[in-house]
Amino acid sequence: MHVDYGNALASEAVTGVSESSLEALEGRVERAHDRIESEIESRTFGYASLALPADTDAAAIDATVAGFDPEAVLTVGIGGSALGADAITEALGVREHYSLDNVDPALTDRLLGELPLESTLVNVVSRSGTTAETLANFLVVRSAMAEAGVDWTERTVVTTGDSGPLRELADERGLPTCRVPEGVPGRFSALSAVGLLPAAALGCDIEAILDGGAEGRAGLSPSLSGAPAYAYGAVAYALEQRGATTNAFVPYAEALEPFAEWFAQLWAESLGKDGLGQTPARALGATDQHSQLQLYRAGRRDKLVTLLRPTEREDRAIPETDVGALSYLGGGTLGGLIDAEFEATEASLAAAGQPNVRLEIDRIDARSVGRLLYDLEAACVLYGELSGVETFTQPAVEWGKRATRRLLEDDSDAALEEKTRRRVE
Amino acid sequence: MHVDYGNALASEAVTGVSESSLEALEGRVERAHDRIESEIESRTFGYASLALPADTDAAAIDATVAGFDPEAVLTVGIGGSALGADAITEALGVREHYSLDNVDPALTDRLLGELPLESTLVNVVSRSGTTAETLANFLVVRSAMAEAGVDWTERTVVTTGDSGPLRELADERGLPTCRVPEGVPGRFSALSAVGLLPAAALGCDIEAILDGGAEGRAGLSPSLSGAPAYAYGAVAYALEQRGATTNAFVPYAEALEPFAEWFAQLWAESLGKDGLGQTPARALGATDQHSQLQLYRAGRRDKLVTLLRPTEREDRAIPETDVGALSYLGGGTLGGLIDAEFEATEASLAAAGQPNVRLEIDRIDARSVGRLLYDLEAACVLYGELSGVETFTQPAVEWGKRATRRLLEDDSDAALEEKTRRRVE
Repeated sequence: MHVDYGNALASEAVTGVSESSLEALEGRVERAHDRIESEIESRTFGYASLALPADTDAAAIDATVAGFDPEAVLTVGIGGSALGADAITEALGVREHYSLDNVDPALTDRLLGELPLESTLVNVVSRSGTTAETLANFLVVRSAMAEAGVDWTERTVVTTGDSGPLRELADERGLPTCRVPEGVPGRFSALSAVGLLPAAALGCDIEAILDGGAEGRAGLSPSLSGAPAYAYGAVAYALEQRGATTNAFVPYAEALEPFAEWFAQLWAESLGKDGLGQTPARALGATDQHSQLQLYRAGRRDKLVTLLRPTEREDRAIPETDVGALSYLGGGTLGGLIDAEFEATEASLAAAGQPNVRLEIDRIDARSVGRLLYDLEAACVLYGELSGVETFTQPAVEWGKRATRRLLEDDSDAALEEKTRRRVE
Repeated sequence: MHVDYGNALASEAVTGVSESSLEALEGRVERAHDRIESEIESRTFGYASLALPADTDAAAIDATVAGFDPEAVLTVGIGGSALGADAITEALGVREHYSLDNVDPALTDRLLGELPLESTLVNVVSRSGTTAETLANFLVVRSAMAEAGVDWTERTVVTTGDSGPLRELADERGLPTCRVPEGVPGRFSALSAVGLLPAAALGCDIEAILDGGAEGRAGLSPSLSGAPAYAYGAVAYALEQRGATTNAFVPYAEALEPFAEWFAQLWAESLGKDGLGQTPARALGATDQHSQLQLYRAGRRDKLVTLLRPTEREDRAIPETDVGALSYLGGGTLGGLIDAEFEATEASLAAAGQPNVRLEIDRIDARSVGRLLYDLEAACVLYGELSGVETFTQPAVEWGKRATRRLLEDDSDAALEEKTRRRVE
């Protein structure tokens, strides 16, 4: 990942950060780096995520899925148990990966209706083995397979922790399993079996993804101007301090759309606590120029806009045309057009004094995707250190989980406090 | 659309609005309503959008697409020229609508590779007839059709303004056309041919969608407590005044995911100006409880969370299980689970003092979708009146469009001001 934060400087942006402030931050970045390195080495909870490229056993994942040769992989998981796999497979152009990552009956019906169950590999992912959404869907899926005459125990792999109901079930039925690595929260698990298994089952080179991650690991250094991951994390943090409470994340590539969703979870769940944190706004270039750009350029000055693109891509020529008003397009390429829009949008934001950062990868391939995943995780970890929050926990989601369970067990609204109603029909 | 804003009151939420403040707002809502009504009647620019349910000629749209009976519809358009059609077709469960709404060569290649060109209807949409992305893609698509031996003039419909290159082309080649209605900005055009044509071509009852819109039109009244659309618009506005600069829009239904994108454009492009406006954050329930909820509950107190659901849906039973830890799920339904999660999330946000509003529709069908589109547009128009911005323009996107064109014509970075670089490799 290459980072260019020139447009986030106070000399360019109304709510930017001055070069001297960034220099003053260098000492904190250096100390944070030392702490991060030491915690990575001891595989402390959370920090262990940044050791994954080396700790993940690609051969074991490949061996787990060997022999299935599925037409499709259906991941049954939610949040970090699905988003990494979605981001990786979509980036690599694998169209045969599906995620059952909601409990909407319409989604479950549709996927069960569309997928060839006899040649689908079902990939159940839950660290605890108790995630309500995942287990409910799994119960539905295995029953649908049985009804279709498919032996689900022959078409299911499980990725879970060392204990819990899913682990017990897998042991009992002899299902192939992978382990959710210790000390790695779901949103940081893309470079483990959690993120890699579907790609492996569908023929991707997961070693190359991990090589990219290892390159990111090697790229960490005690300086924001020397490490792209830290440059991005530190600049984003400094901008939040200056009022950029939204981070609009805008990849200019359709294949990176699920990547923006993965980033949104990483950023929101890691940094959104103690009344702090940037709200990630997922967007897509060039499409959202016709939807969000008005707001980014002329709305509240509370945004960092992160623009991401590959510098090389397969291209397609735009045919010449005899329509005069369009002749400037003919003879060009779609790739040339999207690149021009990327640069024009960046310049347009800069001209309005709106801070933005450019992230670039060389191309969308396995190595670059692994590198990008790692670098953004490291950026997030550094940001969390600077912000002083507990990057690796998500305490605020527990209340809702308990309340859901109470509702299901009691089957009455009395399980929740009486709601104040102001209803307009 | 039913609205319940009980959890947005100051008595419930730390950054909520007091009942007395809402009462004080009633006078402004009444005056705004009178102004809006009068502008609708005179079909003033922008306000004409709210007259669409009556002004749109469903029979003419049906006639334009009659006889095609396509296997797929490919809309070539971007922003408001695609999002309404996407929202409607996805909500109604129509899987054969595709949008070429980006200039990523990978997307264009994929769609051209996957679609049966000989039985696809190409639907080109651009009011001006000059939108660079749309016209570039159209040039590529018609050439690909010609290469595949398909007469593109037999498989193309055009929706555009009364003049411009697309109108001239359509006249010259005898293509069937629909008109983008006068005075209706793209993001407000869902209830015209722009949003309805693909649904009509794929067999949906667009009269029923318009009936829902007409119901929304009839539901406007000079009071926030009497009109759900105005209740939502006024409460969202009052919350922005109190610091809710983000509006997280969270439908609890997969079929409404593109609807959230449509809403994001409506809200961002209409209200994001003069340094004002809420940033729409698109999300999806229950999935994003495992991604964004931590932030919504414990992050900065700068958010309104809008929770949207259908109160009825087709359901699916969760089979009973012998796994003790999961027995509370067995015998329930997926719909019961997603509803429990909706209510638990709402209660969880309320318990944290985080303002949220509940929107409900009876079910996801043509009438309800038309009603929801209309009500959210009316909410936006009222919000714009209260905020005092020019709801119907989008001046801040022009700079980028001109810069893109300069870049393409000059083919050199010199077309833009020199960029300040701070690059970290």
